Amino acid sequence: MIKDGLEDSVGTESVAAGPPSYINRKDDYLRRLRRIEGQARGLQRMVQEEQYCIDILTQVSAMTRALQAVSLGLLEEHLSHCVVDAAARGGAEAQEKVREASAAIARLVRA
Amino acid sequence: MIKDGLEDSVGTESVAAGPPSYINRKDDYLRRLRRIEGQARGLQRMVQEEQYCIDILTQVSAMTRALQAVSLGLLEEHLSHCVVDAAARGGAEAQEKVREASAAIARLVRA
Amino acid sequence: MIKDGLEDSVGTESVAAGPPSYINRKDDYLRRLRRIEGQARGLQRMVQEEQYCIDILTQVSAMTRALQAVSLGLLEEHLSHCVVDAAARGGAEAQEKVREASAAIARLVRA
Amino acid sequence: MIKDGLEDSVGTESVAAGPPSYINRKDDYLRRLRRIEGQARGLQRMVQEEQYCIDILTQVSAMTRALQAVSLGLLEEHLSHCVVDAAARGGAEAQEKVREASAAIARLVRA
Repeated sequence: MIKDGLEDSVGTESVAAGPPSYINRKDDYLRRLRRIEGQARGLQRMVQEEQYCIDILTQVSAMTRALQAVSLGLLEEHLSHCVVDAAARGGAEAQEKVREASAAIARLVRA
Repeated sequence: MIKDGLEDSVGTESVAAGPPSYINRKDDYLRRLRRIEGQARGLQRMVQEEQYCIDILTQVSAMTRALQAVSLGLLEEHLSHCVVDAAARGGAEAQEKVREASAAIARLVRA
Repeated sequence: MIKDGLEDSVGTESVAAGPPSYINRKDDYLRRLRRIEGQARGLQRMVQEEQYCIDILTQVSAMTRALQAVSLGLLEEHLSHCVVDAAARGGAEAQEKVREASAAIARLVRA
Repeated sequence: MIKDGLEDSVGTESVAAGPPSYINRKDDYLRRLRRIEGQARGLQRMVQEEQYCIDILTQVSAMTRALQAVSLGLLEEHLSHCVVDAAARGGAEAQEKVREASAAIARLVRA
């Protein structure tokens, strides 16, 4: 099911525990995502006004880089909190978290 | 100056001529960009609700792929119209268009 | 069939005509590819000597960037010669060349 | 200084400890890197024989994907051993390892 532009995360098999690692910087992430939303609206206006393709491509690249920066930030916090905490607790959970994070990294690299 | 999330395209040195090449599929691009805008809003809701980092990263990857598909589509139409038309007209303009398109491709590849 | 590390290009449906566009810079490309071959050998030595993973990853990133630079150079010359020449000749060939180049660009972006 | 195609890793600030995490799969990595070296040689032969640009680009994309797979494998083992072990030992070292791994991930994503 798709709702509000979000794909179902069926298959992600989250092994979450505790609060998300980005919680201390929640406002920062919300601000960056609002700016990215604004970039998506700006792109629609450029297409609506029939602006030059290459200028539109330049904006798409800027927006892609902004999204990548969000990903890399979230990932670092995830490793720093969720993965490190699971490892400190010991047991099989840490390896499961590493597998899950590695799959997310592969999706980012191959996006 | 930044307006509506758009960076100034100062320095892009557009060598545009005639209508943009995506004009026949304008509605399709607008629809795809609206969906991408929805994905940006969905991500804000996920962060607001403190959902699991890995699930957020999965959505960011999906959104990045959607943006890439828009880029690749616009680029193909640009080559197919602007670059081919300039080449058919002859003269130095075609080489200028190729340089401009190649710079855009490099930005996409290295985004 | 795989020979010397090369995959068969079945399915590429080359629409080649005339000499390749990189012919004037052949020596430059050969030099860059020899350096990349040296990087692949250097990586084997690092693994053989059991050097630190992160240092190996740094070299892999440098090698990937060198490969990307080769791709982007070849692509620009291809657009500048093969595609522009086909467009100048007119007919359906130019559009076929654009489709082929766009598929190559998509493979680079999603590599 | 550059030697055998390797850039100096000055600035990587390795925080290594113990044997590298890929040690159990050393032969597998050596085999994959030898194949990649073969791809680099195959590309030189293609350029030497003046083969079609698009076919060369296809091989470059295949080689880039092979390199990415090596990176992602090494990175997962690094997280699974070095980072998890540092976290299990406790102290500041784990956070230093996470920062180091995150910088390597950013280089891969933006390569």
